[in-house]
Amino acid sequence: MRQRNLSLVLHAVAAHGPISRAGVASRIGLTRAAVSTLVDELARAGLLVELGRSRPGTVGRPGRDLALNERGPAGLGAEIGVDRLAVCAVDLRGRVRARAEEAGEHRGSAPGPVLRRLAGLCARVTADAEREGLRPVGVAVAVPGLVARDAATVVRAPNLGWQGLDAGTVLADALGLPVTIANEANIGALAELWRGGRTPAPRDFVYVSAEIGIGAAVVVDGSLLRGAHGFAGELGHVPVRPAGRPCACGGRGCLEQYAGEEALLRAAGIEERGAAGVGVLRARAGAGDGAARRALRGAGTALGTALAGVVNLLDPETIVLGGALTELSPWLLPAAERELRRHVADPTRAAHGEIVVSGLGRDAALLGAAQSVVQDVLDDPMGALAAAG
Amino acid sequence: MRQRNLSLVLHAVAAHGPISRAGVASRIGLTRAAVSTLVDELARAGLLVELGRSRPGTVGRPGRDLALNERGPAGLGAEIGVDRLAVCAVDLRGRVRARAEEAGEHRGSAPGPVLRRLAGLCARVTADAEREGLRPVGVAVAVPGLVARDAATVVRAPNLGWQGLDAGTVLADALGLPVTIANEANIGALAELWRGGRTPAPRDFVYVSAEIGIGAAVVVDGSLLRGAHGFAGELGHVPVRPAGRPCACGGRGCLEQYAGEEALLRAAGIEERGAAGVGVLRARAGAGDGAARRALRGAGTALGTALAGVVNLLDPETIVLGGALTELSPWLLPAAERELRRHVADPTRAAHGEIVVSGLGRDAALLGAAQSVVQDVLDDPMGALAAAG
Repeated sequence: MRQRNLSLVLHAVAAHGPISRAGVASRIGLTRAAVSTLVDELARAGLLVELGRSRPGTVGRPGRDLALNERGPAGLGAEIGVDRLAVCAVDLRGRVRARAEEAGEHRGSAPGPVLRRLAGLCARVTADAEREGLRPVGVAVAVPGLVARDAATVVRAPNLGWQGLDAGTVLADALGLPVTIANEANIGALAELWRGGRTPAPRDFVYVSAEIGIGAAVVVDGSLLRGAHGFAGELGHVPVRPAGRPCACGGRGCLEQYAGEEALLRAAGIEERGAAGVGVLRARAGAGDGAARRALRGAGTALGTALAGVVNLLDPETIVLGGALTELSPWLLPAAERELRRHVADPTRAAHGEIVVSGLGRDAALLGAAQSVVQDVLDDPMGALAAAG
Repeated sequence: MRQRNLSLVLHAVAAHGPISRAGVASRIGLTRAAVSTLVDELARAGLLVELGRSRPGTVGRPGRDLALNERGPAGLGAEIGVDRLAVCAVDLRGRVRARAEEAGEHRGSAPGPVLRRLAGLCARVTADAEREGLRPVGVAVAVPGLVARDAATVVRAPNLGWQGLDAGTVLADALGLPVTIANEANIGALAELWRGGRTPAPRDFVYVSAEIGIGAAVVVDGSLLRGAHGFAGELGHVPVRPAGRPCACGGRGCLEQYAGEEALLRAAGIEERGAAGVGVLRARAGAGDGAARRALRGAGTALGTALAGVVNLLDPETIVLGGALTELSPWLLPAAERELRRHVADPTRAAHGEIVVSGLGRDAALLGAAQSVVQDVLDDPMGALAAAG
């Protein structure tokens, strides 16, 4: 009960701060005295701070406003992408306070060196964060693949070539911090929920992460649908051309083979890969290049076919497109929406033909990962601090 | 709290009866005195009965065993199929006690006469049930279409040609009983959960109802995933041939156009429709007829393509095939499973290539509908009896 009340106070301050003790008490339905005891404990743990006196003009003993500490505990987020590593630190207020990124070519890479480089980046960001008075209490790592329910094992990341890898334990040993591993689309969807900036935040949506791989996450009533083994959301391997191209997953005609970043660049005749290739494609499409526009139409159409299945099966309120390919949305989306409408003619469905673009861009998973550590602190403050040692 | 405890007692007797008051008390963690008061109330309402003395050899005052009343309150289930109407009455113990069925051709039918005939069937089954000492307290009606969250309005049933029809109010007026309308695949999935006879009952599965239309229901942790508007599970309109045949839904290349009953009979060159046609197809396939076997392979393959999308998106523990076409499963399933395995090569998924056939056959939705009324009584006994008047 005490743990729950500590969390209630923190969430009230997170949502409404700066706010007085009396304000917190009235919002969460506890007495002012009970709230004061909880606030003192949270302040001692470095989670809350008291600001200057609030509303000096009001009658009675002036209260001090409470806010989440912008020094103190922080969350580290990391991303193992097919073509980059990235790490950031987010404070309790959700602001990014340190960030580092390294390009890399991780396709078919040995996991050991990649994880060592990631640990090095984490150490660098931790040092930067510490200079700002922050203390990372955990790391969440987004990976482009299936993650087991233990939140440690990468079961299969086809675009990295990794399989059955306990990345969580390797990184926890290297960093001396609690580590959780998460699927990048799942964590990107949570970023959309927490940081998407939409009011009210959507509660039932499908988040599509379009990069080299294409992942998705299904959010139902504000929670991730994980599937029986945690493998739900593999949109990239939904067949859109049943007798089509073979895929690294062992299947055929998977969406990824038509709308993934590499398929798209190949179709447009662009040799550069990764962000550089996407930049070239974007420039050519903007200049009206026929091959670029055709490639984007083809990819958008394949995406629309797969999303038609999603809308029929799941009836989401909204479809949100995120990831690196959002830069190409001016050309991808019209084709995707046209195809979606062709297959989901039913006008009674809200998500019958509109795809919303995430404002978080290619950092969605990275930000979501860092924020997930912060959310764990807000949900169970003393537990999270104890786990961090 | 009292309502909740009444429900706890009923559920304990439903799951473990015949059982003594002491047995109920120990299972639900209430005192024997409290249980006795609750049992008396439930017995007065006709929900429980006391059987003969239990275990006469035991020491102490012999208790009487409790059981759900096999007379008294009952649930009516009804089904509006494209080619039949059916109604049944199920007692509190879940046994079917009366049943009636009428063939019909409801494609493009005016709803009024169909609903009047259904009300007539309900009256007939009610009369039969009353002769057995039963008293129906509600009706649930399965329809092959999208049902609004009000559980009364048929938003769209393309194979009937109905749209925006408040069938719930029409039937409630005719019958003088509470009526709920439900999608036939959803209610078939609940039947599988409640009456499927698997131990343990699957908690995460996709139920496919294959008839003239092909519906599906997604069960996550024992609950239906309904979607933002209640329209989830429209497997029949998942595109499997993106540039394929036009469908009544307005889309193209929908699964229903390749694996629905009519498409299948047409492909096999069979003129009979409905159960008769399925019987002919079954006989021909059994006799090794090439056209019949080819048609079934084609339908199975299309089903497998759509299910590959389902497995990738939802990661269910199990896929259960129900509905009229289960009669054809010896020929449909091998092709569907082969196609599913071709697209979901990942051996770490439980549902990567096996489809289970429901034992409930074409009555799944009918039985699920009747059982849903009984479940409502078990969940809120006094509320359900009060609503029935």
